[in-house]
Amino acid sequence: MSVIDFLFGRPLRSSEERTERLGASAGIPVFGLDALSSAAYGPEAALTLLIALGAAGIAYIVPITISIVILLLIVYFSYRQTIEAYPQGGGSYTVAGQNLGPFAGLLAATALMIDYVLTAAVGISAGVGALVSAVPKLQPHTLMLCLAILLLITLVNLRGSRETGFVFMIPTYLFLGSLGTVIAMGIGKAVLSGGHPTPVASPPTLPAATAAVSTWLVLKAFASGCTAMTGVEAVSNGVTAFREPVVQTARRTLTTIITLLAILLLGIAYLCRAYQIGATEPGPGYQSVLSQLTAAVVGRNVFYMITIGSVLLVLSFSANTAFADFPRLCRLIAQDGYLPVPLAERGRRLVYTWGITTLALLCAALLILFGGVTDRLIPLFAVGAFLAFTLSQAGMVEHGRRTGAPRLHIFLNAFGAVATATTLVIVAITKFASGAWITMVLIPLIMVMMFSIRRHYDRLRSEISNAAPIDLGDRTAPVVVMPMMAWTTVSRAGLEFAFKICWEVYVVHVSTGEGEKEFLSHWQKEVEVQARQAGIRMPQLKILKSPYRFVIGPIVDYVLELEARNPGRQIAVIIPELVEKHWYHNFLHNQRATWLKAALLLKGNRRIVIINVPWYTDQ
Amino acid sequence: MSVIDFLFGRPLRSSEERTERLGASAGIPVFGLDALSSAAYGPEAALTLLIALGAAGIAYIVPITISIVILLLIVYFSYRQTIEAYPQGGGSYTVAGQNLGPFAGLLAATALMIDYVLTAAVGISAGVGALVSAVPKLQPHTLMLCLAILLLITLVNLRGSRETGFVFMIPTYLFLGSLGTVIAMGIGKAVLSGGHPTPVASPPTLPAATAAVSTWLVLKAFASGCTAMTGVEAVSNGVTAFREPVVQTARRTLTTIITLLAILLLGIAYLCRAYQIGATEPGPGYQSVLSQLTAAVVGRNVFYMITIGSVLLVLSFSANTAFADFPRLCRLIAQDGYLPVPLAERGRRLVYTWGITTLALLCAALLILFGGVTDRLIPLFAVGAFLAFTLSQAGMVEHGRRTGAPRLHIFLNAFGAVATATTLVIVAITKFASGAWITMVLIPLIMVMMFSIRRHYDRLRSEISNAAPIDLGDRTAPVVVMPMMAWTTVSRAGLEFAFKICWEVYVVHVSTGEGEKEFLSHWQKEVEVQARQAGIRMPQLKILKSPYRFVIGPIVDYVLELEARNPGRQIAVIIPELVEKHWYHNFLHNQRATWLKAALLLKGNRRIVIINVPWYTDQ
Repeated sequence: MSVIDFLFGRPLRSSEERTERLGASAGIPVFGLDALSSAAYGPEAALTLLIALGAAGIAYIVPITISIVILLLIVYFSYRQTIEAYPQGGGSYTVAGQNLGPFAGLLAATALMIDYVLTAAVGISAGVGALVSAVPKLQPHTLMLCLAILLLITLVNLRGSRETGFVFMIPTYLFLGSLGTVIAMGIGKAVLSGGHPTPVASPPTLPAATAAVSTWLVLKAFASGCTAMTGVEAVSNGVTAFREPVVQTARRTLTTIITLLAILLLGIAYLCRAYQIGATEPGPGYQSVLSQLTAAVVGRNVFYMITIGSVLLVLSFSANTAFADFPRLCRLIAQDGYLPVPLAERGRRLVYTWGITTLALLCAALLILFGGVTDRLIPLFAVGAFLAFTLSQAGMVEHGRRTGAPRLHIFLNAFGAVATATTLVIVAITKFASGAWITMVLIPLIMVMMFSIRRHYDRLRSEISNAAPIDLGDRTAPVVVMPMMAWTTVSRAGLEFAFKICWEVYVVHVSTGEGEKEFLSHWQKEVEVQARQAGIRMPQLKILKSPYRFVIGPIVDYVLELEARNPGRQIAVIIPELVEKHWYHNFLHNQRATWLKAALLLKGNRRIVIINVPWYTDQ
Repeated sequence: MSVIDFLFGRPLRSSEERTERLGASAGIPVFGLDALSSAAYGPEAALTLLIALGAAGIAYIVPITISIVILLLIVYFSYRQTIEAYPQGGGSYTVAGQNLGPFAGLLAATALMIDYVLTAAVGISAGVGALVSAVPKLQPHTLMLCLAILLLITLVNLRGSRETGFVFMIPTYLFLGSLGTVIAMGIGKAVLSGGHPTPVASPPTLPAATAAVSTWLVLKAFASGCTAMTGVEAVSNGVTAFREPVVQTARRTLTTIITLLAILLLGIAYLCRAYQIGATEPGPGYQSVLSQLTAAVVGRNVFYMITIGSVLLVLSFSANTAFADFPRLCRLIAQDGYLPVPLAERGRRLVYTWGITTLALLCAALLILFGGVTDRLIPLFAVGAFLAFTLSQAGMVEHGRRTGAPRLHIFLNAFGAVATATTLVIVAITKFASGAWITMVLIPLIMVMMFSIRRHYDRLRSEISNAAPIDLGDRTAPVVVMPMMAWTTVSRAGLEFAFKICWEVYVVHVSTGEGEKEFLSHWQKEVEVQARQAGIRMPQLKILKSPYRFVIGPIVDYVLELEARNPGRQIAVIIPELVEKHWYHNFLHNQRATWLKAALLLKGNRRIVIINVPWYTDQ
């Protein structure tokens, strides 16, 4: 078994595509990790803004969470319809593109692509951050840990979707099981104690209020809490990854994910109020909301460890949803010609290798740039998600009108579009200064790039496709020219080939001062004498002096000169090349053949052809 | 002016070599910085070992320094003769190689090469270390500062030797002038005060003795002080860099450097005793010997600043000597076939570009590995220098015997060889555990590599040179095969060229499931019909199914099969290639042509020739 097979698994036949498809249970870890893991940071983000209100602020978490869950359900309803209407996948991109035009589609796609890159980086660094704060010894290795997890996720994804589902299933269900148990127990205790349960381990006392309630503050808390909604569109982007019946499987997966997320969010909000748990300021003494909550309900025992451990795992692996969706989205865009075609090609394991690699590289760049601590990126990514939600739902309104869908559906989608658009505005305004502006600058830049890629492809296609029939009228042999530095078996092989394709052979020798005489004597003995005996046209020898010791430049110039002197003829440049058996032996030579090939391709034109005659050493 | 011209200067003609040569005044900064800067750390290294003796230890610095200076003069005498005997340069490598055999020559060369890499890294990091301890704010940027200085030195050296001389002249003469003044003033004050001058700024009191004097301790101090001698061989390695009369100029340069170094060393030693200045322990309160000495003589004023500043500059730039010598040494070894030939080629500015680049990379690797703090490397590098000294002097003994040199010369060289060999043993033993063993392990490894490179070149030369006369008996046209994925102007250009060189054309289409039918219909209309009309032999179309979506593998296999079916014939594989006008447009395509070329070169054989037919877009 080769190293590649070991790392990435054996290649899969195109016909094996069906066996790679996912059921709902494997679909949740693949497409749901992002959404579900946001239960770990959404409520926390909202509560952080409520710190200023002191104990009184905790009460607001319940109405805020209810608003978020209502918004979540509206969006869910919309994507449920999207899955049915567009079983070929692509979610917001397809819906907006097909109903509102390519501009809207690309806008949604760009927003989502940025969102996925950020989500992957933030997810990994959040998981590692939590781990590092639990085991401070690991602090100096933060970046390395982030990159190791990124590498793991990348490798698993390159192995294919089915394997990804299996690998991430255990942490996902451990997370759902343990956190679900904590919430169920907590609610039980709260209800039994008449709404005022006694915590097993008391959460830190809440600080005194430093501000009065204001609409602005509540809006900001709501906007922050909305990060909990990112990842909801994931299933609709990747419908094609599901098992037959595709639409039903995808819908069942989406319903499960949303139900679980809603339960988690509401449960956490209720328990925060019941146990009077608030966010803590970052720095020493910081404790995450989920950690306080779990400790309050079950105490600091083994079960606490398991729960918090599974939260860390799920946070780090939430990047996986981006890895499932980003390549699929890129593929659809590339198929439409707005991104480079390699992104649309399936690799050896039937996954979109280039998309996965691109995401991994962008994510690694972000992690390295921020040293593995990406807190500052969090404000950036809700903008992308809500832009996509809005466009997607607006698209569904249009789709509903065209297909004559029930009025209620159209109304709900329109209501959803307005709701998410409003949220988008709130998020954009409240988070503009802290980073959302970066997203707003990036989106138009990326869109300009995508439109110019499409324009380039269009022009190229109209130039090269629909080629005329082959022209067999002019079959004149090309003029052959070959550089020769010395008379060796390598150059002899090249020259012998030259005489097989043509009679008109030019040889060019670049003289840098040494060896010219020796070469000339060889030339006369080994070539001219033979050519005379064979009675064939004598190859023309051209000696070029090179006072600056450049070799490649003079050869290229001579070839261009020869081309100008022979209008209508093709010029074949023969480049003999020594090929070593072992790659490291290539360091022993000056790689002039490689550079010459590159220079000729760069400076040449359609009439100049490069013939590479290799000579393999016996060594 | 292009960026390259701006950074590296315009290319120089080979005939301009003479104008690049150095006089003695420019030769000192180029070849003497390493030797002269060691005045800044040699005495300090010896004094550090004498700390244990307390105030009583200071007295030993004078006899130790005198011994070192005597050794220095012996070595100087030997290298003076070497310059005359071997004006082609190469110093120890040439002397040992030509008189004691290639093994001894390569041993000396390897020792020096290691020495140069270490010297460059240690010099830069010592300078930056001193700067950082003066301006603690810069501490976090230590590595970046080291790499920036390395980059500066590398760029200056790539511009050529003359410019290097100019750039480093100011800091060198500033250093000599200011430190010379300090020493002269100090000696004057000491003599006037009857040997007990009063310091302007008092040096820290010396600690109490913690050990008694022992031969071992004095030997260790002597061995440490010997680091002051590294760099003495530099001039003899680079004789060819000097102006005519070459030997006289080089000798004058060497004499000046050694005289200055001896004065500095003796002056520093005398003043240390007179002012009772010892080394201080590293850590807070650390003050270098030169800093104490300057402060004691002139006080902490502007002149003190200038002197200490010039010491820092000269330390960082001492790496420059390695940059002058390492490439020249590599060039000589490469000319003898023990190192890759590119190291022997002169670049656009008549310097050995590859040698400079190699040294810069090795040095950067060391700096990065040690985070810019290379104190631990200091023990490693005296071993290399003394090994080279010993072999060089032993070679001069043999040379003297062969050429009938005066007895006194032979005796002095023999005495020098014994003296440096003894020192080598002392250095190796006293510093074995602290790192000298690494050098001893590296030397044999590098030598094995050099001998195997030479063996490879020898075998290759006997295989490819003295090639037989060209064989024009078999001029049968090659079999032409061309992969075609679709009918485009690109593939049409390739196929048209195919018919210009041969009648027997095979076309191979790899079918990954899509587009096969469309391709077939094009093939019949645009190719087969035309070929029939033109009355030429029909090109053979081969369709290969590729269930795993691999394209390159099946094509290579088919070419190899075709080659097996046509024994004695050459197989020409035509690879049409779309060439974009802008390099960044290459990201828009899957680069299959490039990969196919690489795969064919890798798996092919002497009978398979690669023809690259480029199609340049109009875009």
